[in-house]
Amino acid sequence: MNQPATPPASVRIVEVGPRDGLQNEKAQIATADKIALIDRLSATGLRSIEATSFVSPKWVPQLADAAEVFAGIARRPGVHYPVLVPNEQGYERARAVGVEEIAVFTAASEAFNRKNINASIDESLARFAPVMARAKADGVAVRGYVSTVLGCPYQGAVPVGDVVRVARALFDMGCYEISLGDTIGVGTPGKARAMFKAVAAEVPLTALAVHFHDTYGQALANILACLEEGAAVVDSAVSGTGGCPYAKGASGNVASEDVVYMLHGLGVSTGVDIDALADTGRWLAALLGRETGSKVGKALAAA
Amino acid sequence: MNQPATPPASVRIVEVGPRDGLQNEKAQIATADKIALIDRLSATGLRSIEATSFVSPKWVPQLADAAEVFAGIARRPGVHYPVLVPNEQGYERARAVGVEEIAVFTAASEAFNRKNINASIDESLARFAPVMARAKADGVAVRGYVSTVLGCPYQGAVPVGDVVRVARALFDMGCYEISLGDTIGVGTPGKARAMFKAVAAEVPLTALAVHFHDTYGQALANILACLEEGAAVVDSAVSGTGGCPYAKGASGNVASEDVVYMLHGLGVSTGVDIDALADTGRWLAALLGRETGSKVGKALAAA
Repeated sequence: MNQPATPPASVRIVEVGPRDGLQNEKAQIATADKIALIDRLSATGLRSIEATSFVSPKWVPQLADAAEVFAGIARRPGVHYPVLVPNEQGYERARAVGVEEIAVFTAASEAFNRKNINASIDESLARFAPVMARAKADGVAVRGYVSTVLGCPYQGAVPVGDVVRVARALFDMGCYEISLGDTIGVGTPGKARAMFKAVAAEVPLTALAVHFHDTYGQALANILACLEEGAAVVDSAVSGTGGCPYAKGASGNVASEDVVYMLHGLGVSTGVDIDALADTGRWLAALLGRETGSKVGKALAAA
Repeated sequence: MNQPATPPASVRIVEVGPRDGLQNEKAQIATADKIALIDRLSATGLRSIEATSFVSPKWVPQLADAAEVFAGIARRPGVHYPVLVPNEQGYERARAVGVEEIAVFTAASEAFNRKNINASIDESLARFAPVMARAKADGVAVRGYVSTVLGCPYQGAVPVGDVVRVARALFDMGCYEISLGDTIGVGTPGKARAMFKAVAAEVPLTALAVHFHDTYGQALANILACLEEGAAVVDSAVSGTGGCPYAKGASGNVASEDVVYMLHGLGVSTGVDIDALADTGRWLAALLGRETGSKVGKALAAA
């Protein structure tokens, strides 16, 4: 057998629970609880926490309080708090409350873009141009999300070439990091590895992140395959919140606790206190009226 | 990055739900339902189904009906139905109803053996000798389980050398296959890979199986790491039944549906109809009065 590639010595977790997790949760969370969630998360040692979304409240009612949430968090030195921004209007709302890092998003699937934002991939990229220009002028860092990288609920398979093209375009437009998202969680490790390798041939490894959903339980295996290809930034959501809008009742984002447990077991440092993280995951699950979606969270509570 | 090792072209799933899964479930399942479970499983294309256990009903009341279950199943040609056997008495009960394949078990942890069967590892191996001799004389195939290969609830870490020694001893005693079990599900992929490689240096790859529990959500990642080292037999339990007697409320055996989904996605054939398997998992979960423990089972139901 071949010698497996060694995972990186350290990995940065981008905690997306307060945004990607909560935006798909039905139970309305109070603004104060969202703020408490983010502050609890920053106390665990996490260095990147996606705090909220300045998408129109019409589309994401759960995050209609984005400005209040962002204004309310106790910003910890050294911690990044990116927020999702769809357009210039969102950018202005975000900047008004002191946002210093944003994230923009598009899909690698033409069908997904058309269904979701009624635009082609190229049109959606063109829409970012003014936001990117303003961010650059303001010294605001921009993260780029590519969604549906391993499958699309409308078109099915997504050609790897499309993922590479969109990731490259976001990088060329000035995104410092590109997060590759398996939005519907259908990917398996061989396909995840091949997709990641193909993108890494066009975009520097240091500018790539992986973002897996656990809809089919494959997220950790997919992350492992990408770590072996040099991925060193992993998106995840405490307590595995979010569900899947395309598969009601299915699992959501990969749970941060489970990712951190695997990384620590692999000897990869994250800077995260896993017990504090699991505590926060169970606290959030209680707010949502259910069991934690993290297996580590359950096991640590039982131990 | 290195070229990753290719997984094998096909993998045999050993479905352990009717035994390892059910033995740790509190809800008493009717004998007829156990028989129906096994017959549903054999109809999915599974070739190995651990049917029950002839351990004393005093220890495992859920499986007190082992003889009735085994006598009741519709044995499908080409399908193996091993049963767990702890001693000669169990062997005789099993043979009386026509069992043709058995499994014996010991732990790689001295502390675990002492707590569970009040014997050292060497004593527990010595106890198998008469069973092994009779099995050989009768032409009964014997599978060997090594438990606690990546951690023990009593002694904590388990030296890899102990796992290798026990696996080798079982192989030398005549077991045709050795299943390496992370009983408490604490392992992570680097440790799983190193343990598997160490055993594979002493026992032929073709005689090895891996058996992961999903207590900390790591099972699929661990399986992936072992597949890359040449593992071609994977134990799993439909619907992820079993829980963890050492961590109440935690997850159980890795769900067969999730393993099969990963394998098929990797291009590895299993011969299993995943939709039929997921149906059976949800049917079993309903009998147990809860949601399926398989994420694939949930996602397929939602899709």
